[in-house]
Amino acid sequence: MNDYIAGEVRARGVHQVLSPVVDVARDPRWGRIEETFGEDPYLVGEMGVAAVEGLRGVGKDPKLGEGQVLATLKHMTGHGQPESGTNVGPAQISERTLREVFFPPFREVVDRTAIDAVMASYNEIDGIPSHSNVWLLQDVLRGEWGYQGAIVSDYYAIEEMVSRHKVAADIPEAAAQALGAGVDIDLPDGISYRTLPDLLRQGRVSVEQIDRAVRRILTMKFNAGLFEAPFVTDAAPAIASDGSRGAALARKATEKALVLLKNDGTLPLSLPEEAAHKPTIAIIGPNADIARLGGYSGIPRNRVTPLDGVAALVGDRANIVYSRGVAITGSDDWWGDEVTLADPDKNRRMIAEAVDAARNADTIILFVGDTEQTSREAWSEDHLGDRSSLDLVGQQNELFAAMKALGKPIVTVLVNGRPPSYLAVDEGSNAILETWYAGEQQGNAIADALFGRINPGGKMPVTTARNVGHVPVFYNHKPSARRGYLFDETSPLYPFGHGLSYTTFTFGTPSLSSASIRPGQGVTVSVPVTNNGEMAGDEVVQVYLRDLVSSVTRPVKELAGFKRVTLQPGETQQVDIAIRPDAFAVWNREMKRLVEPGEFAVMVGPNSVDLAETRLMVTP
Amino acid sequence: MNDYIAGEVRARGVHQVLSPVVDVARDPRWGRIEETFGEDPYLVGEMGVAAVEGLRGVGKDPKLGEGQVLATLKHMTGHGQPESGTNVGPAQISERTLREVFFPPFREVVDRTAIDAVMASYNEIDGIPSHSNVWLLQDVLRGEWGYQGAIVSDYYAIEEMVSRHKVAADIPEAAAQALGAGVDIDLPDGISYRTLPDLLRQGRVSVEQIDRAVRRILTMKFNAGLFEAPFVTDAAPAIASDGSRGAALARKATEKALVLLKNDGTLPLSLPEEAAHKPTIAIIGPNADIARLGGYSGIPRNRVTPLDGVAALVGDRANIVYSRGVAITGSDDWWGDEVTLADPDKNRRMIAEAVDAARNADTIILFVGDTEQTSREAWSEDHLGDRSSLDLVGQQNELFAAMKALGKPIVTVLVNGRPPSYLAVDEGSNAILETWYAGEQQGNAIADALFGRINPGGKMPVTTARNVGHVPVFYNHKPSARRGYLFDETSPLYPFGHGLSYTTFTFGTPSLSSASIRPGQGVTVSVPVTNNGEMAGDEVVQVYLRDLVSSVTRPVKELAGFKRVTLQPGETQQVDIAIRPDAFAVWNREMKRLVEPGEFAVMVGPNSVDLAETRLMVTP
Repeated sequence: MNDYIAGEVRARGVHQVLSPVVDVARDPRWGRIEETFGEDPYLVGEMGVAAVEGLRGVGKDPKLGEGQVLATLKHMTGHGQPESGTNVGPAQISERTLREVFFPPFREVVDRTAIDAVMASYNEIDGIPSHSNVWLLQDVLRGEWGYQGAIVSDYYAIEEMVSRHKVAADIPEAAAQALGAGVDIDLPDGISYRTLPDLLRQGRVSVEQIDRAVRRILTMKFNAGLFEAPFVTDAAPAIASDGSRGAALARKATEKALVLLKNDGTLPLSLPEEAAHKPTIAIIGPNADIARLGGYSGIPRNRVTPLDGVAALVGDRANIVYSRGVAITGSDDWWGDEVTLADPDKNRRMIAEAVDAARNADTIILFVGDTEQTSREAWSEDHLGDRSSLDLVGQQNELFAAMKALGKPIVTVLVNGRPPSYLAVDEGSNAILETWYAGEQQGNAIADALFGRINPGGKMPVTTARNVGHVPVFYNHKPSARRGYLFDETSPLYPFGHGLSYTTFTFGTPSLSSASIRPGQGVTVSVPVTNNGEMAGDEVVQVYLRDLVSSVTRPVKELAGFKRVTLQPGETQQVDIAIRPDAFAVWNREMKRLVEPGEFAVMVGPNSVDLAETRLMVTP
Repeated sequence: MNDYIAGEVRARGVHQVLSPVVDVARDPRWGRIEETFGEDPYLVGEMGVAAVEGLRGVGKDPKLGEGQVLATLKHMTGHGQPESGTNVGPAQISERTLREVFFPPFREVVDRTAIDAVMASYNEIDGIPSHSNVWLLQDVLRGEWGYQGAIVSDYYAIEEMVSRHKVAADIPEAAAQALGAGVDIDLPDGISYRTLPDLLRQGRVSVEQIDRAVRRILTMKFNAGLFEAPFVTDAAPAIASDGSRGAALARKATEKALVLLKNDGTLPLSLPEEAAHKPTIAIIGPNADIARLGGYSGIPRNRVTPLDGVAALVGDRANIVYSRGVAITGSDDWWGDEVTLADPDKNRRMIAEAVDAARNADTIILFVGDTEQTSREAWSEDHLGDRSSLDLVGQQNELFAAMKALGKPIVTVLVNGRPPSYLAVDEGSNAILETWYAGEQQGNAIADALFGRINPGGKMPVTTARNVGHVPVFYNHKPSARRGYLFDETSPLYPFGHGLSYTTFTFGTPSLSSASIRPGQGVTVSVPVTNNGEMAGDEVVQVYLRDLVSSVTRPVKELAGFKRVTLQPGETQQVDIAIRPDAFAVWNREMKRLVEPGEFAVMVGPNSVDLAETRLMVTP
């Protein structure tokens, strides 16, 4: 996937991408959660490594050629838990939590890949903006982790030390602080670093500091092959103009990403063999006839909307009726600066039209969720993408209620950027398919899933809260958290790791490669998994650990391994998942990383709640 | 006030109270917010000092006699910002925030009073439960602050290191950790510390550790005069049985605590001189005929409900009709273990009765809010007092809507434990009086305020959010916080420091005793304040600081001084408020406390928003 992306990128003459985002996302109000791999440090780290390996073309010449670009790891760090959930808010995160939760994905990528660039984060941690945080960028990133690459600024973040954080009186002072903290490049246009010559003359920065930054930039450019092959190759135009392999990959990626949240048996939908019994399917909703791509996607040459995908799949075997139902915002299909709520009266008329359209349908497929505007990076006080409610924006719940009142089966397809805390839709739908922003081929992949041509097997990378009053809700909390609220159900609507299938899997008793290990050793967890249904399907087997007693408090559970397997009907497979030695380590009271002898719970299952437990002893 | 309390306490043979709570409360979901002095470190510190000085009988013999008891400062620390707002949740607080926000009230009391006991907090900070936090209790409290008194455990908190936090395998291990961290007393019943003899024999604690704890306990008892006068004096029965002076004090305290949140001129209510024009006043609501006292108050001999207070005040000059309207919970007037929602059908019938009762009234006074159960310490998973909504519990909004539909003036009196994020009530009421849990004389003081016998002059010690999706909402946030949410108004419903009056005050231009100071110097802010109305009243003049540029990020504003003045109609008074040298200090990047030269904004006004600004230069 990512190596293909790299190929397309290189064919356009680009040598570096500002990706992947390995921020651990711990607040669903934060619009930028849509860019992340979720709330679990291990999952985010594995995804980050995979993304960078793909972009860098693992196994290929370290000098970049086709199918290889430099990746930029971002944002270092604490960006994913902003105070009050508003973008670039202070990261109120103490050191051990940084080391346990926010650092690990960055460290994984630094340790395991040839990452060339790390981007500092906009936010402050404990009073210090990351672009001037010497401890973060020098002591930890370069010192402890041995990172040798470049550090790049986030866009205008050096200036924001003046305008936002007020830790520098003017831009030259901010530039001196950033250079001193080891930020090598001032993105996007170098406004701050243009002051470096003056600062050098004034003795406020040293030539060694500048040389160091220049050396890192040049090294990165050497690694990019810019000095040997600065231009695209003869093959580039063909690669850049041929989207066929990319479309197949995009479709495959979407197929694997779909999460079946709920299903009373309504899904998969069936189509009759004979045209005489044509069912009528109502395709309703503001996200049905648009292929949403998320906040930072370009516009691809081809994109297949869900409506088009379903229509293509059913052909003449069903009657399709379509009605948009509501507009989510005043400009749903435009990705720009302004965003307003849609006209409520017009929406009510559209709901009435949708009711008319769906009245004679056999099944309603409802496409609701976000636009690219309602869950995105809030890049200024005027351009907001964070929300104080986690329910559907605008009048989508009214549309749902009107559809529900028709008394027909409702399949809800979610196209959105945040975990779906949509209580009314959740309770009232017969089945729910979570698709996120599913790429250019979303229409085909969603249609395939709805009609059982493929079997959804994705899992939720975030906990879904019942309402915003519960935040934060991440699953890997400390034992003293989440005591509960008066008169309210605190359990998640959907736990981390949740995802159903059209088939059913049963897990046998998990076993360990060893009943006890010593510090520095790992262990392999094995569990037989059986497909008991009548359709092939994927299960993501998940392993969680809990350190039962430790010198510092430890989470009630933490993901330590996972494996996605495909099982044919009736097939049983023993799934072996290796747990790394480091998974048993703590940062102790002296902030040393070590494995403390004692007992661990090792929990295995299809999500973070339905777990079978076994015990492992770590002996001294 | 507190010295009177101390006298009553001593007359009952008690030498120590578990008060005051100086936790800075930063999450309104947390039920225990009702026990605190609010969200501002300076305010909480000043209140804590006043409470301890009162309890300890400042200026009296240091050995406790009548009107003097030992105070216990609690809870050290971070208790007021539990993760997700649920009690004893992890304090996700980094070191600088501890030093800037959570430590100052404790330090103020330790520095300025003869405090004898500090209680450790249940929660963990950065993975370490406070009862085993050597850095917190030894390095900071004893080492940096020079505290010499005893450290007491919270109830069963040492055991909770086993049962909740899992940092000790068993109770003896927890006891050894707590003793090692300097916890001298195991409250309430010493279950953990009964294992100390065995631990001593096993060499797991030292005799020096035990001697040290015993020495501190004995010192505290000496300071309490227990060895010289262990029993109550002959005067005790008279003090204990005479509540008259206490009642007057309680009434005075309530008068000063009332906060007028909103008023369109409906308040104060007037009564006709002649009985011929008797108005009818409907007293409605679940908190009208009960004197709520909060979660940890005993039941006093006498208490005056608002209904009784109003009836006594109006006498035969008005017709009073009363109807309860709704029950908030299944057991509103019982302070016990179980709490359920009230029967909704019965509530609907009660609302109909209230509508009938109020139909012919000239004015409706509506008493809504909390019971002692709905905002209180959640002391276990079964006894919850934290909430995921900040709106009124149960069907109180339905009661309000029914009253509102009658089209009469509505004065809403709030009796509650949390800041009142009651949007519908707020918008629909003609006037709102916030009374909190206003003590045994609440009925008389509230009646006096409603009818203009007194003029409310209290201010809000917390920010009132518009909804729970905005938490945290404390006013003294960093500049990068509170960017705002899509399609939602982020400003507080009521800002910190807000409170109206029946008269109007105007503030003149503030001036400073010096346009510039040097580190280590304070400054006096002076502002002329005029009562422009026709009624005497109190204004609380508030001074806020902002460090314009500093080496670490600093809050957008911070309370640095306040003074409550009483002004007669037409009177102008120059209010001088001394700002302490320490108010200008920061904890710099090396975590050193110092004043950095530079410019400060000095802001003066009647609340934290409506401020006139002047500038102060701190020169090197």
